[in-house]
Amino acid sequence: MGMDIVSEVRSHGGRQLVCKHRSTATETEMVFSVFLPPQAEQGGRLPMMWYLSGLTCTHANVTEKGEYRAACAEHGLVLVAPDTSPRGEGVPDDPEGAWDFGLGAGFYVDATEVPWAANYRMWSYVTAELAALVEAEFPVDPARQGITGHSMGGHGALTIALNHPEWFRSVSAFAPIVAPSQVPWGEKALGRYLGPERSAWRRHDAVALIEDGARVPELLVDVGEADPFLERELRPELLERACAEAGIRLELRRQPGYDHSYYFISTFMADHLRWHAERLVGTSN
Amino acid sequence: MGMDIVSEVRSHGGRQLVCKHRSTATETEMVFSVFLPPQAEQGGRLPMMWYLSGLTCTHANVTEKGEYRAACAEHGLVLVAPDTSPRGEGVPDDPEGAWDFGLGAGFYVDATEVPWAANYRMWSYVTAELAALVEAEFPVDPARQGITGHSMGGHGALTIALNHPEWFRSVSAFAPIVAPSQVPWGEKALGRYLGPERSAWRRHDAVALIEDGARVPELLVDVGEADPFLERELRPELLERACAEAGIRLELRRQPGYDHSYYFISTFMADHLRWHAERLVGTSN
Repeated sequence: MGMDIVSEVRSHGGRQLVCKHRSTATETEMVFSVFLPPQAEQGGRLPMMWYLSGLTCTHANVTEKGEYRAACAEHGLVLVAPDTSPRGEGVPDDPEGAWDFGLGAGFYVDATEVPWAANYRMWSYVTAELAALVEAEFPVDPARQGITGHSMGGHGALTIALNHPEWFRSVSAFAPIVAPSQVPWGEKALGRYLGPERSAWRRHDAVALIEDGARVPELLVDVGEADPFLERELRPELLERACAEAGIRLELRRQPGYDHSYYFISTFMADHLRWHAERLVGTSN
Repeated sequence: MGMDIVSEVRSHGGRQLVCKHRSTATETEMVFSVFLPPQAEQGGRLPMMWYLSGLTCTHANVTEKGEYRAACAEHGLVLVAPDTSPRGEGVPDDPEGAWDFGLGAGFYVDATEVPWAANYRMWSYVTAELAALVEAEFPVDPARQGITGHSMGGHGALTIALNHPEWFRSVSAFAPIVAPSQVPWGEKALGRYLGPERSAWRRHDAVALIEDGARVPELLVDVGEADPFLERELRPELLERACAEAGIRLELRRQPGYDHSYYFISTFMADHLRWHAERLVGTSN
């Protein structure tokens, strides 16, 4: 394993790190950020949050604009923010340079199709390689993990948690893509990364996973009612229906006037982190 | 007057606006941001904060990374963030493209020297033109204004308040340049904008202003002890000495481990806004 610290800055009483490492999953160098709250300096392992970012983002968007550090410092949460795709020389991109596929748009799957399969392995990268690296390098308690994300990253958070509910004590999302098999962004990405056989898409589709029997006890989801992608790409009503039929406690909050941006995410970040902290902090290992 | 709203986004229960207008002071188009907290929708005029930015910044840096909206929403504060220089076709820049002079480095003065005097009039722009525009366009109470800023913008906040203490009920700064006449950034900027006669610099130098009799009752200043500009450019000890001799109540907090970045500013932003709110909110007009 091994990694390098690209930058380390004091913030909100803790340390905001940006790290890079050579990934065997993606066969590229990968960059991620980690916030260590002040409690990390007292020794012991802390509960941790995953934040998975949306289309076009790197680790930097949430790190600069997510407004998570005050809440992480208050509750003693480590927060890890991975990149959204492999990058670098030789990594193929959308041939037309589209922003919703290829670079910045890994969709948290292991691609099986040429030419994506060589590098676009964000599922293995996040769930196995980076998870092991973070546990080895930072004082985190793997028994107390929560996961959240935005848009494509909300899709990532939901699908990772539904595939591995035993890994997480809490799951939330901001404006997630809940049914990629049924919306344009998802059909394009899953079709190209995973091929035309739609049965292979189901474990990367939160609504399909729930229909197929995957369960988490509860979900917190915020969406903005002025989000321009709400009706076409996000379709939270599909998650609402699936959760109702499956008996999953979904708290879906439609926030009047909010859009899809970090102005929306940062507004509700502290509230999500408080909600996760109630499920992660002060509980036994 | 008149202005256009470039963007309007809901955030933290309020509205984050970016506005542009044609400035007669700078003879350019100028962009600024305004946060209107939720209380702005109840009618009435609200207390307001000025945030002046540092070298290389536009309105966007603090708007994206300053983490001020939660505190402004809590206390009912409007926050206005101007740009740091004129920009656009025909506006001269540092001939060597330096980042500490010219574009992004207006230093909150009205230049008197050729070729800067035509556009570099940030003193008149901020203190007269923009102040009048904001009062005309937004529900702010001019009797309840506070001012703060970062680095060059901390210099701007201190010097504007010391020249016009009657305008402000509260003044603070993050890592300010307190004595530009005595440090390289300031000597370069004031020398070029105002000419070699140093007596003309004194009303744009917080320490010199205090030595010359300018007074505010109290100041709150945070500096990071790991700020790479602390000893050479910021020199808070000069402000400390001047305030002690003048009887100005200065709360100077040296924050261990913090640098000059928005990771530092955002850490203490909520605390500064709380401090300003104690002096601005709930007091009579």
